[in-house]
Amino acid sequence: MQLLETVNTLREQLALARRAGKSIGLVPTMGALHEGHASLIRAAAAENDVVVVSIFVNPTQFGPNEDLAAYPRTLEKDMAVAKEAGAAIIFHPPVKEVYPDGNATWVDVEGPLTAGLCGRSRPGHFRGVTTVVSRLFNIVRPERAYFGQKDAQQVQVLKRMAADLFFDIDLRIQPIVREADGLAMSSRNTYLSPVERQAALILSRSLAEAKRLVAAGERNTAAIEKAVAAFIQTEPLATIDYIELVHPSDLARRETLTDTSLLALAVRIGKTRLIDNTFLEVS
Amino acid sequence: MQLLETVNTLREQLALARRAGKSIGLVPTMGALHEGHASLIRAAAAENDVVVVSIFVNPTQFGPNEDLAAYPRTLEKDMAVAKEAGAAIIFHPPVKEVYPDGNATWVDVEGPLTAGLCGRSRPGHFRGVTTVVSRLFNIVRPERAYFGQKDAQQVQVLKRMAADLFFDIDLRIQPIVREADGLAMSSRNTYLSPVERQAALILSRSLAEAKRLVAAGERNTAAIEKAVAAFIQTEPLATIDYIELVHPSDLARRETLTDTSLLALAVRIGKTRLIDNTFLEVS
Repeated sequence: MQLLETVNTLREQLALARRAGKSIGLVPTMGALHEGHASLIRAAAAENDVVVVSIFVNPTQFGPNEDLAAYPRTLEKDMAVAKEAGAAIIFHPPVKEVYPDGNATWVDVEGPLTAGLCGRSRPGHFRGVTTVVSRLFNIVRPERAYFGQKDAQQVQVLKRMAADLFFDIDLRIQPIVREADGLAMSSRNTYLSPVERQAALILSRSLAEAKRLVAAGERNTAAIEKAVAAFIQTEPLATIDYIELVHPSDLARRETLTDTSLLALAVRIGKTRLIDNTFLEVS
Repeated sequence: MQLLETVNTLREQLALARRAGKSIGLVPTMGALHEGHASLIRAAAAENDVVVVSIFVNPTQFGPNEDLAAYPRTLEKDMAVAKEAGAAIIFHPPVKEVYPDGNATWVDVEGPLTAGLCGRSRPGHFRGVTTVVSRLFNIVRPERAYFGQKDAQQVQVLKRMAADLFFDIDLRIQPIVREADGLAMSSRNTYLSPVERQAALILSRSLAEAKRLVAAGERNTAAIEKAVAAFIQTEPLATIDYIELVHPSDLARRETLTDTSLLALAVRIGKTRLIDNTFLEVS
């Protein structure tokens, strides 16, 4: 496995691979790799000859009061995880390589896809995501790129961006990977104290509670959201950022569940903001 | 020469060309082709195996009170011009092909490059340009793309966009092509009445006047701009939009000319807004 830090060296390696007829898969990450990332890398390795894992803590997707400086950076461990899962290249550029002097160009998905959910509580976040991912797409020019369903809104935003800008790249979305007790894997889980770690289970449990309600026949969106909120409020360490039950593609709210819906939530456990989501199937 | 109207048919043809080892040059236009466009196409034909000329009157780069509906559309003639100059493919998509349903993604160069000059009088214009050109770049994936120096600010904005977003495309800038009497070629020249056509010469003549001033030793930016303004105001049909003497790359104004500078102007002749520019060399 190679560790590359510049766009030029990466492009040289990828040109060689392409000339040899090899397909390229890209797994964009911010590092602090966990089993969720490993599942993306394994999926990429199964479908591509060469897997590039980018590790880049992208400053433009963090708000001014967010955890950019504190975000975990664990390159040595990340390299071991990526290699084990089948990566051929780690692309780990410094900030100035991705955002050179005089940088001025932004890629922005406007409208309902970025207005609600995390877009409401993290203004500018998705603009940073689409800006960096469009750069990575052009730098790597992969056949396929891998993203986790954990970031459900990001998935829809990136699908829209890729379609609108005619990126000839197949976006392959992989299911959420959870700890044995249900906690969705996240690099931010490392922020949690043992007590908070236990309290964080309220997220996945509240999703299970919503599934029970739907299975019992509940179809009213507001009623389900209200029940989930009440469930989460039983946990004293939890502060709700949002709970939204939306259409899984357009992320717009419907009064009544008539088809598969996406229940997405963001909850602070102490100071740590966690997200989780699940599809609610209406049979 | 082929006329193609969908992204898919174009991509099929380009995939064949690429598989045959052919290089691809792109000349993005809004049609109403004149000798300026022909010079771009000829330059592309000299440097590439396959030349794609896109003809697309891009709605997103027109302001609400601009000439989108009136913009000349002359496909038959354009095809003859393009073929004669060496184009292999005309890509002439309908609007819904470039901006499909639910379109939401914008590419935007922020800051000084788009703030002044035409950016001031045409808010949103460059955002439309970078949005459509980034799409065309991803649709065609050319080795080289050709633009005219006539649109001096557009050239710098697109260079910035291509660099920032890591488009692996060489931007080849071609000199302004002028009529025998000095008028810069423009699709909008067709709007001019015979009397206005004569009055429009004030643009290129004012650039020549500035060159004379610099040759005579004038180095003060404001003095040159003022002299050019006074010169243009001798023409009763002319209304100045802007006259700016700036650095040719960053488009920022300097108090004094110390190096090659760009003199750019936009002037209305009757209702028709024309632009022109020249480099002022300081020996």
